[in-house]
Amino acid sequence: MKNNLEICLSPAMYEAHSDTEAVVVIIDILRATSSICTAFANGVREIIPVATVDEARVLKDKGYLLAAERDGYVLDFADFGNSPFNFTPEKVREKSIAYSTTNGTGIMHMASDCHAVVIGSYLNFSALCVWLEGQKRKVIIICAGWKKRFNLEDTLCAGAIAERLIEGGRFTTVCDSVHAAIDLWRLAKHDVIGYIEKAAQRSRLRDKGLDDCIGYCHNFDMTDIIPVLQGERLVRL
Amino acid sequence: MKNNLEICLSPAMYEAHSDTEAVVVIIDILRATSSICTAFANGVREIIPVATVDEARVLKDKGYLLAAERDGYVLDFADFGNSPFNFTPEKVREKSIAYSTTNGTGIMHMASDCHAVVIGSYLNFSALCVWLEGQKRKVIIICAGWKKRFNLEDTLCAGAIAERLIEGGRFTTVCDSVHAAIDLWRLAKHDVIGYIEKAAQRSRLRDKGLDDCIGYCHNFDMTDIIPVLQGERLVRL
Repeated sequence: MKNNLEICLSPAMYEAHSDTEAVVVIIDILRATSSICTAFANGVREIIPVATVDEARVLKDKGYLLAAERDGYVLDFADFGNSPFNFTPEKVREKSIAYSTTNGTGIMHMASDCHAVVIGSYLNFSALCVWLEGQKRKVIIICAGWKKRFNLEDTLCAGAIAERLIEGGRFTTVCDSVHAAIDLWRLAKHDVIGYIEKAAQRSRLRDKGLDDCIGYCHNFDMTDIIPVLQGERLVRL
Repeated sequence: MKNNLEICLSPAMYEAHSDTEAVVVIIDILRATSSICTAFANGVREIIPVATVDEARVLKDKGYLLAAERDGYVLDFADFGNSPFNFTPEKVREKSIAYSTTNGTGIMHMASDCHAVVIGSYLNFSALCVWLEGQKRKVIIICAGWKKRFNLEDTLCAGAIAERLIEGGRFTTVCDSVHAAIDLWRLAKHDVIGYIEKAAQRSRLRDKGLDDCIGYCHNFDMTDIIPVLQGERLVRL
């Protein structure tokens, strides 16, 4: 029997998709989930995703290394910001990091009553898809979006995962978002970087000089690590 | 100066788009806004869109003709359901109708603090676009979706309107939903009925024998009437 696949295009729609039996994949390509996958590839021990600036400050005061930004700007009391290039082996190996971003980190706990919450990006694409196929459960992919709105770059990655899972034959869907995301991915896949030139986040990052990581964030399969939420922490699956 | 255009892909995301200075267009192609445009084309005096079954019952008791359904089923105390074919001149001319559906009618009041709320469909497409171009204001198109989820058929019509408005040169956008909806519309436009074969609502209507109106609901420009919310009521603009 095939398992159902759904895509939730914005955290604002999560209530309509929520299912405690499902495995949830969080996608925030520019840049939170790309950075998290990078951190694990570079040997981080654990990451504590936090929603608010206040929570970030508390963890910093407790001695955690803190990565934190809002709207692309590094918080003044943070050790570094949200670029995946910050999470170097020198900085993160064997460390516990608290991490707070505008969109992605706040929603990771939103789905914590589900069967499992894992982190997805292009960087761990194939390992993630293989693992999802082995779960024999419904999968819901949540796009972090931008301040509860839809965004293109997360939708494309969700579409890429959905195309692979549906074509793999173990998943089916009755979710219109899956069809839309796959069709957009098929339009964009031969030149994703070119396609997302029109994305709002592309302009935001360019305007702030933070767009150096966009190509990197769209590389497939730089790691086979799948970060998973365990209580309050993301750890290696 | 060009005006901004946004598309809100589900009522669940409306808070993130809300702007009291904007003109809001409500789209619920299968079937509420197609039926409303049909009713006005056939001479209805006014339509009172109501969100809840209880409100519908109160208006029925007050003597209003009542069109009402949930999940495609006509409410037992209603005069008729949600098919545009119900709103014939014989039934609706000069009448005041209370109208309650699963998705579309509940959201019309949600945006009532905006500059104006109008009803859009393929049936009044060109008249609507011309009128929107004359407003010289930001426009937000809200897709009714399905129970707060994204749907394909409303997104395609929003994409059709967006393509026309952007190509007309008086609108611009920084909203990723607009780009996605236009791209999906361009994929689908040469065979919209074929494209929405995969839409969940297509199957729902087929399963209930309610799909006779799908072709009709995708006809362009059957009327030049734009229904507009005036207080609690939809009237001819």
